[in-house]
Amino acid sequence: MHKTAAYAAVDARTPLAPFSIERREPGPNEVLIDILYCGVCHSDIHQARDEWGGSAFPMVPGHEIVGRVARLGANVKSFQVGDAVGVGCFVDSCRECPQCRAGEEQYCDQGMTGTYNSRERGTGAPTYGGYSTRITVDQDYVLRIPESIPLDRAAPLLCAGITTYSPLKHYGVKAGDEVAVVGLGGLGHMAVKIAVAMGARVTVLSTSESKREAALALGAQAFAATRDKATFKTLSRSFDFIIDSVSGDHDYNAYLGLLKFDGTMVLLGIPETPSTVAAGALIMQRRKLGGSLIGGIRETQEMLDFCAEHGVASDIELIDIAQINEAYERMIKGDVRYRFVIDIASLGKAA
Amino acid sequence: MHKTAAYAAVDARTPLAPFSIERREPGPNEVLIDILYCGVCHSDIHQARDEWGGSAFPMVPGHEIVGRVARLGANVKSFQVGDAVGVGCFVDSCRECPQCRAGEEQYCDQGMTGTYNSRERGTGAPTYGGYSTRITVDQDYVLRIPESIPLDRAAPLLCAGITTYSPLKHYGVKAGDEVAVVGLGGLGHMAVKIAVAMGARVTVLSTSESKREAALALGAQAFAATRDKATFKTLSRSFDFIIDSVSGDHDYNAYLGLLKFDGTMVLLGIPETPSTVAAGALIMQRRKLGGSLIGGIRETQEMLDFCAEHGVASDIELIDIAQINEAYERMIKGDVRYRFVIDIASLGKAA
Repeated sequence: MHKTAAYAAVDARTPLAPFSIERREPGPNEVLIDILYCGVCHSDIHQARDEWGGSAFPMVPGHEIVGRVARLGANVKSFQVGDAVGVGCFVDSCRECPQCRAGEEQYCDQGMTGTYNSRERGTGAPTYGGYSTRITVDQDYVLRIPESIPLDRAAPLLCAGITTYSPLKHYGVKAGDEVAVVGLGGLGHMAVKIAVAMGARVTVLSTSESKREAALALGAQAFAATRDKATFKTLSRSFDFIIDSVSGDHDYNAYLGLLKFDGTMVLLGIPETPSTVAAGALIMQRRKLGGSLIGGIRETQEMLDFCAEHGVASDIELIDIAQINEAYERMIKGDVRYRFVIDIASLGKAA
Repeated sequence: MHKTAAYAAVDARTPLAPFSIERREPGPNEVLIDILYCGVCHSDIHQARDEWGGSAFPMVPGHEIVGRVARLGANVKSFQVGDAVGVGCFVDSCRECPQCRAGEEQYCDQGMTGTYNSRERGTGAPTYGGYSTRITVDQDYVLRIPESIPLDRAAPLLCAGITTYSPLKHYGVKAGDEVAVVGLGGLGHMAVKIAVAMGARVTVLSTSESKREAALALGAQAFAATRDKATFKTLSRSFDFIIDSVSGDHDYNAYLGLLKFDGTMVLLGIPETPSTVAAGALIMQRRKLGGSLIGGIRETQEMLDFCAEHGVASDIELIDIAQINEAYERMIKGDVRYRFVIDIASLGKAA
């Protein structure tokens, strides 16, 4: 066992604080990773504060993990000590259901094993995430990080990157397509970069004009403020694909009207109050409303290789672990461009 | 001009009654059809009673028209006098927009020209539907009815048939797929027959047990009553495809939970009160919610040929035109298996 420095929430109300966990020596099919960086996802806050219910404490959040291989199990052939690797939102799944066999482990019939706030399939032991200096993971759930991507900027690709890449790929977005990205946070900014890299013409739809410059700087070709009701007339039937990254309450029908014939809108966020859907908005132009959940291991690797090839990485703000509680407060206010990433070296020092 | 006996609504409140219209001598690209049968669609009632707003009176409803070619324009090569032909929900469209060029005229950018309660593109004259003894229609909007289908039972294929065939085809329903049909009226009964003919395993979902026998008699392999809340647990994640023919208010989320991974639910009806959609129901199994509107001319012909090949026709109750107002009342109560079809010979006698 390896004593490992971490930061944990001991309950839903207490700020995160230093904590110690143990990581096991890698089994024959496992990899022990020295963590270098961990992205901070909004779902870390929801779970650390038990806003979705069912959280298990103490909790070590973090599922956008990048590091280097420290030790290998005897059967591990595809990684070597020192390799840059990543771990995303899950570390195991049943491996036998149709989705697992299709490489869509995130939709596992038995439920994927979350990287944190979950329980290991074998032992039932709690899983602890990337706000820690080490992690031991089955090789089948470890990603290879192309060395051309700066490792700190690669971390958010493991969740925000794959969550936006997967639906763009699944629905066949291609060069020349008109794509709208609703919301410009951690997910939205990755959707813009990836869709632009796919050759789409990207319009960012955000509440106010304040994000116009930032959207264009990310590579979007256009921007429209949704607070301006004229936007929904001007852009009526303009898009082949809309990727909706907003978790706050909003009216899907207004956005559905922006889709062309046969267009698709995909939801990534879960608003507290579900929107209504007017059947006519779907029927009249044969539109579709879909949803999408992160991505499987194979597709996550594909996304990382795509990002390396196209020079795509997250725009981040690197923080020390001691700043994590402040970072949570800033994220709640939307005050981050676009993702906080923890420099785990600061945790080594803190511990 | 041909003086033509018809039945019309003179306003939204008066029962339909005998009326006289004129049909033009066919132009070079047109066909004059002697109407034999006309199906009675629920939308006839909505429009005759101006329940959707914007109805134009006097109105001669009817868009499930079957008859025989009486006279041909000089340029018409693909039909001969005496041929069994049909006319569905529209008689013209712009012919130039992307949807028209793709053979999806029902989604025409400029709006299709409805078979009734619409205006001709050239003259602006009102269009009158199939509750009449004759109609003159451009050859490009005339369907060929395979002689193996009884002509009275072919009429509802022009609307109810294509409305259900098109989404089954568009979403690639194939042999062995698990398909649920929600609602067992005019649309639902055609959805069952066509999906069964495609080789799918069909489950009918209807409010009460009262339709179980009828559903099985139509070829469905299974039935479940939706008033029984256990149905939504028992059948959770059971279907590849759900075709929802219900226009009454209902909760989409309950039905979305019945879809398997990557499954699709398609809406055909427009409830007065839109249902909410919980994003999680779409995200967790990558489900899709879509809509579909009748079908294009090319696909309608394909559907007719498919029905002929598979021995599919509508189950109908043949009525005289004088029974039309009573038929409307019975349809509102759901008291028809499954479509009223007017024997237009009765109109000839009445006029």
